[in-house]
Amino acid sequence: MYILVINAGSSSLKYQLFDMPSDKPLCTGLIERIGTNEALIRHKILTTEPGLTIERKGTIADHAEGLEQMLQLLSDTETGLIHSADDIQVVGHRVVHGGERFAKPTLITPSVKEAIKVLFPLAPLHNPINYQCIEIAEKTFPRAKQIAVFDTAFHQTLPAYAFRYAIPDTLYVHEGIRVYGFHGTSHKYVCGKAMTWLQKPDAKLISIHLGNGCSMTAVRAGQSIDTSMGFSPLAGLVMGTRSGDIDPAIIFHLISLGYSTDDVNTLLNKQSGMQGLTGLSDMRDIGKAVAAGNRSAELALEIYAYRIRKYIGAYAAVLNGLDALIFTAGVGENDSAMRERICSALDVLNIHLDSSKNSAHSSEIRDVSRDQATVKILVIPTNEELEIAVQSYELLHER
Amino acid sequence: MYILVINAGSSSLKYQLFDMPSDKPLCTGLIERIGTNEALIRHKILTTEPGLTIERKGTIADHAEGLEQMLQLLSDTETGLIHSADDIQVVGHRVVHGGERFAKPTLITPSVKEAIKVLFPLAPLHNPINYQCIEIAEKTFPRAKQIAVFDTAFHQTLPAYAFRYAIPDTLYVHEGIRVYGFHGTSHKYVCGKAMTWLQKPDAKLISIHLGNGCSMTAVRAGQSIDTSMGFSPLAGLVMGTRSGDIDPAIIFHLISLGYSTDDVNTLLNKQSGMQGLTGLSDMRDIGKAVAAGNRSAELALEIYAYRIRKYIGAYAAVLNGLDALIFTAGVGENDSAMRERICSALDVLNIHLDSSKNSAHSSEIRDVSRDQATVKILVIPTNEELEIAVQSYELLHER
Repeated sequence: MYILVINAGSSSLKYQLFDMPSDKPLCTGLIERIGTNEALIRHKILTTEPGLTIERKGTIADHAEGLEQMLQLLSDTETGLIHSADDIQVVGHRVVHGGERFAKPTLITPSVKEAIKVLFPLAPLHNPINYQCIEIAEKTFPRAKQIAVFDTAFHQTLPAYAFRYAIPDTLYVHEGIRVYGFHGTSHKYVCGKAMTWLQKPDAKLISIHLGNGCSMTAVRAGQSIDTSMGFSPLAGLVMGTRSGDIDPAIIFHLISLGYSTDDVNTLLNKQSGMQGLTGLSDMRDIGKAVAAGNRSAELALEIYAYRIRKYIGAYAAVLNGLDALIFTAGVGENDSAMRERICSALDVLNIHLDSSKNSAHSSEIRDVSRDQATVKILVIPTNEELEIAVQSYELLHER
Repeated sequence: MYILVINAGSSSLKYQLFDMPSDKPLCTGLIERIGTNEALIRHKILTTEPGLTIERKGTIADHAEGLEQMLQLLSDTETGLIHSADDIQVVGHRVVHGGERFAKPTLITPSVKEAIKVLFPLAPLHNPINYQCIEIAEKTFPRAKQIAVFDTAFHQTLPAYAFRYAIPDTLYVHEGIRVYGFHGTSHKYVCGKAMTWLQKPDAKLISIHLGNGCSMTAVRAGQSIDTSMGFSPLAGLVMGTRSGDIDPAIIFHLISLGYSTDDVNTLLNKQSGMQGLTGLSDMRDIGKAVAAGNRSAELALEIYAYRIRKYIGAYAAVLNGLDALIFTAGVGENDSAMRERICSALDVLNIHLDSSKNSAHSSEIRDVSRDQATVKILVIPTNEELEIAVQSYELLHER
């Protein structure tokens, strides 16, 4: 069964084609700068050895045209993997916000689409584009089953005392203001891998997803019990351009200084985090700045790590134990110096990192804790697209 | 030496007279509803056995009149403790915000007053009234030395990675937006007591101040290294009417729903916390509601405790160890059920509460951890007024 996974952003679209249930990726692609005449498609075929990458530059007016061009590449007579759109049996969509309604992957029906629309106010930057791509995919792949996998779904197991804010009851009941959490597909994927690796289905895990967005999740027996992003993806850890946790009174103070609400919103989402502290948002660039003696870059790395260290402690407390820390996503998988910074001086939690294991390179799951350490420190490459394909496949083959 | 301590709120004023250096309190008083014709002074003389309480009701137009009436009571020919205002050698003022300038108790001079004024924008509800009371006390007690003890001072030892937010650098440098922390006088007082009790000057402590406002502080060797209130007293724990930590995006969302900035500010400061969750802000009332089967009251207690449990974990991690938890202030000292709720299932941190010790009553410092527990759980009555008197006395008798 061919499952195409689509992960759409406001001006970009990632896609991946899987042969299921073998989990085999057949091709992967990225369309960038949609809506401009400098759009770029990078389409990589994985069925040949070595892989073949095809690049196309030019105008792509919108996501519909992006999907059309993707289909052309997928069904190209020379390099194509399929004959026509009808060979795609399932399209799995990443949908950011599933609210309280969607705790599982869901076959898309008119009523599901309506529900995704109802959630627009909770995810104004993401759900509309996800919705739009579902409608396009329904036209482009009319024979395929469309399935939505929600970024919030994994966190629907949070207990009320963890997902509720201490604000008037009615704001939860009528406005849906609560912790939803995000990156759920990634956290679920790496925690599943960790439980298998540990051979411990009731494992107590802390999953640390460090990409451009960053979040952490406390997981017990495969269930998310707390997570650092909240009502929105702004809360929690320090990110590339997002502040993460701040005193909410700072917003009122900035407004009293003359900022508009929109200014402050933009400030905290786009001009804060590592960008705000250093002028740089990419950890590799910040690493270079530190090497060049830039003290504010060094401080920014400390702030970034310190916030994570506090969440590790908080989650170890509420889990009342810890079997493994998991590092994943770009920074988590590749930045060994950051992992070391985060894991230092945490003896109180039996966290002991082995520097030489930690600095070795690998694209496989690996443990970088000291030999005989009771708390494992796992580096696990995430794969949200594969997780979406697996969940979509399982939905159609449920008992 | 007679030291009078003044702790002024917007419509109230607490005062206490000490004979130093014996730390002996001679009288204590509370003036409420200042600015109304239903003002109330409760003046309690402690030098007689039993103590003598004098109450006066009537109009008190402003803080100046409140101080005048206090002076009358203090120097009353029958019950008075002093002959005239000149017998007061020192007036110690609680001042809420000392910014980055004041890390210690400070003799008030014109330039110090000016600095307190400069900090008005950072503490608009508190510093103006503190400033005003300093000016009144200068007139009422013209011979006394006036000393300011700042609520933020104890937290000036926070390292930069703990006090900085991940927002643009310039907002710290030019606008002073950082973690200041509050309740410093209380945290310092109880941590001093704990270090003496433990006979361990380098103790790793977590001080939990649970009153109407709530905050926690991580203390190592007598120095605050992190604290839960931030730029303002809104951040951190769930409080009587304050939300504590929330996703900052909730503010933008509420504004998009039609709330004004002032509405949201009031909502988070006055209508949230336990009040927002239950309609009640006093923990004793909430306890009664739980006993009557009110489920939202039970959930509110869980949310309140859960937030504290997360901070305990976070602070144990950054301290990398823990000698004692300290509970203090109204709820911390008196609510044994809440202490038990907070301390349950924290074996991972070697926290083990002894239920029978915990439910015993005492107004003395006491340990409610299990025998032989490595982490002590101390209940320590706070005394901010005494701490202000001690710090004021020490300032004048420095080597």
